[in-house]
Order: sequence, then C-alpha cells, then structure tokens
Amino acid sequence: MLSPAEARQKFRAGLRVPTSGYCPGWTQANLLSLPREHAYDFLLFAQRNPKACPVLDVTEPGQTSASVFAGDLRTDLPGYRVYREGQLVDERTEVTSLWRDDLVSFLIGCSFTFEAALQQAGVPVRHIDMGTNVPMYRTNRECRPAGALSGPLVVSMRPVPAELVPTAVRVTSRYPAVHGAPVHVGAPGLLGIDDLACPDFGDAVEIRPGEVPVFWACGVTPQAAVMRSKPPFAIGHAPGHMAITDLRDSEFQVP
Amino acid sequence: MLSPAEARQKFRAGLRVPTSGYCPGWTQANLLSLPREHAYDFLLFAQRNPKACPVLDVTEPGQTSASVFAGDLRTDLPGYRVYREGQLVDERTEVTSLWRDDLVSFLIGCSFTFEAALQQAGVPVRHIDMGTNVPMYRTNRECRPAGALSGPLVVSMRPVPAELVPTAVRVTSRYPAVHGAPVHVGAPGLLGIDDLACPDFGDAVEIRPGEVPVFWACGVTPQAAVMRSKPPFAIGHAPGHMAITDLRDSEFQVP
Repeated sequence: MLSPAEARQKFRAGLRVPTSGYCPGWTQANLLSLPREHAYDFLLFAQRNPKACPVLDVTEPGQTSASVFAGDLRTDLPGYRVYREGQLVDERTEVTSLWRDDLVSFLIGCSFTFEAALQQAGVPVRHIDMGTNVPMYRTNRECRPAGALSGPLVVSMRPVPAELVPTAVRVTSRYPAVHGAPVHVGAPGLLGIDDLACPDFGDAVEIRPGEVPVFWACGVTPQAAVMRSKPPFAIGHAPGHMAITDLRDSEFQVP
Repeated sequence: MLSPAEARQKFRAGLRVPTSGYCPGWTQANLLSLPREHAYDFLLFAQRNPKACPVLDVTEPGQTSASVFAGDLRTDLPGYRVYREGQLVDERTEVTSLWRDDLVSFLIGCSFTFEAALQQAGVPVRHIDMGTNVPMYRTNRECRPAGALSGPLVVSMRPVPAELVPTAVRVTSRYPAVHGAPVHVGAPGLLGIDDLACPDFGDAVEIRPGEVPVFWACGVTPQAAVMRSKPPFAIGHAPGHMAITDLRDSEFQVP
C-alpha cells in the first residue's frame, strides 16, 4: 500500500506501469498540458464535454505542481506522450527538458477512481485481475467542439456479467466528477468499435460468456482532440499511466 | 404551469418577479456576461469554485442564446444588473441596448433546481411558501481566486426543521451540478453573517422555533467577484430573477 508520494517517487525513478489498482483510495488523474493561448479553448471543451473531461485542477502557466498534486508534473507520472502539431512524436518517462513556461496543465478525473467501489460491490474489474492496462477505444461520437478544439469521444471498456450491469451503473453513477455512469452498455458496433480485441489505447481484455462490454467516457478524449485539432505543442500522460493525486476517492462520491 | 418558452415570453414583455417556483421541473440558471478577454479567468474561477459556480453552458462571444436556453439572453430574464468597474450602475428588465459583440455569457446552476425535490421529500421551502425571494448572504469565506477574479462565497439560506436537516442534505446532495449539498448547517455567525434578517440579496424569511438555517452555495457568487474584482463591464441576472432554461431538473440528479 503505497502513499501517493511514495508512488510518485517510484515513477520519478523511472518505473513505467499502468496505474490501475495503484494507491487504492487515492484519486488518479489524466494530464494535458497546453500552451496558455490554447487554455481557454480546452477549458471550454472540458466544460462542454463533462463526462469525458471532468476537470479536477488547472495550474497557472508554467507551474510544475498543482493544488491536488504535490509532486512534479514533469517527472512523477509513469509515462508521457508528446505531441507536435497533433502528431505523437515521443513517449517518455519524464518531460523536464521539454517543459515550457507557458504550459497550463489540466488534471482530469479518471475512471480508475471508481474501480475500488466496483470491486467492493462485487463487480469484477478484468484488467486489474489480469494485471494489464484498461482497453480504450475511439468512438464515432463527436464531442461538442470549443474554439479550435474538436475530436471524438474516447471510452474505456470493462466487461461486466450481465446480472451485475445494473450494479455497475448504480455504483459508478455516484462518481460524476470522475466520468460517472457509463455512456453505453453493449452493442460496441453502434459506437463504431469494430473489434473489441483491438483497442486504440491500452490492452485487450478477455470477455467471458455472459459478460457485456460496458463503456465509460475516458480522459484520453483530450488527447484525441489534440490529435484532431493539432495545437503546436501538447503533453499528455501515457494512456493508463496516470497522475496519482493527493485527493481521496471518497471526495468524489455523491450523495 | 408555464413552459420555459411561455415564461420567457412573459419576462420579455416586462414581468419582473423572482422565479423560485416558476416552471417546476425546468432548470433555472444564473447569468454572468463578461467581455471575452475576461472569459478565461471566469471559467477558471468557476472550475476552482464548483459548488458556487457550476457552469451549465458558455456561449460564443456576442451570442444572444445558448444551447440550453433557446430564448434571448438580453430580454428573457425577469431582471438584470449592470456593472461598470465593479459598481452596480443599473437594474433593468432588458439589456438589449447595452449588449456587446464580445460578451461571453455563462449560465450557472441555481439551487431553485432542487427545491421541487425538497418539497417532494417533505421539506418546506419557506420563501416559496411566503411568495418572496430567497435570502442570500455574502460570507467570510473566500473563493479560490483565478487570474484577476476573487471574491467571497455567497450563500442562499433555507430554514429547515431540525428533524428534516438530514433529509435536506441527502436530497440536495444528489444535485451536485446545481450547488449540491449545503456548505454549512446552523451557526450563521461562523460564516460572518451577523443578522439573518438582513440578507445582502433577496428577502428575509421567517425562521420558526425548531428550525435551523441551512446554507447552500449560491450562483450570485460570480457577481460578488465582479464587485470585488472590477472588470470594466459585466451583466448579471437580478438575484433570484433567473434564466429559465430548456433543461429538465432530472438531468442533474445523480445517481
């Protein structure tokens, strides 16, 4: 049982792992760092797409920590992706040399937050049981655009036994600030997902007989918008390799 | 039982009334319109103070309607307040002649949204029963600042019979996007409220023996920030005289 500070220390030292199941009880977050001139468009994009982009915190330009994250945003995540003009140009374990004084960092809620609650309610979480990264898919659903930003909704998928789907919906709906209730249950083809075995991000997981694929809005959606909209520069977390914050999961539970 | 469009028509024709209890089942919203150059600061202020400033919608600059409000933002609220350099300079029933092409309008959740749910749960809502405006108070609690914007938290108050306080907390906590659970129960002096009979906005209400004053974060908070922070120009709704949107209250209920 690592504390957030201990986990961040391991990531700073170079450990590169998906963070699902890490530091149970502590909230994990997606990262997107953008030049200040694009910050309003992104904050508006997030407001218009709150299921996919629930904003937990926004830094001042150039700041390397956040009010909810006492570590160093440049080194303390287990993986980063670097974009230039919308192209993924690098994947790294730290971004210190790339940091800029005008970068505004957005920390965005992550569905890993409600996974402990799912398990406590008896809903298995396959990618945790398999020790892999959660599967994530681009969908055919468009986000509401904002300024220069547009892009598709990205979803994470967890296979849920059919009789536990109502429980999974009920439990996760109590966490609206970290993606909340699913956006889609079953019928992946209607989301434009042709093959669940080929996720766009993360790893495929086994779907057993009697299980239904359940889809939640995913905090990789901002990076899909970066790829589509091509701002000159952006840094994101590596999908599934999250920022572990100093917030307790319980702060996000309603009622 | 008016529809939102019918109510807006009456307000456009000049009817000036507090909107609590109007169009039950339809979501009401606070308005703040600011020049585009101040929009990022305000959107960030809202993100940092989500209990007081839950953003339901943001317009493009100059737009006079919104995706959640099919009416005319310049005429279809029952009352407006106009600020120059943070000074309240005018109170009007329409602001057409003052409108500017660079105004970005923010529609912010309103606690009137959960009042029907309170009544259905057996919790009396005094200002509705009295036919007056809800009492609102500036507090001694500072909001988290953002850029040039800072200000105190403003709260609305409803007196609740002591045995119904838990019900009032439980019911309203299911509406996090429209201020959610109370921020304070009892002890108004600790919020810096010296005299409940003298609200800063709205009307005083009777507090009966055995009732406890319960305080919810209030969407007048943005106007208190305008008064403190003195942007050159701003338009807000007259407190208690809200925008009636085309959204159903039920959309904001979780789980």
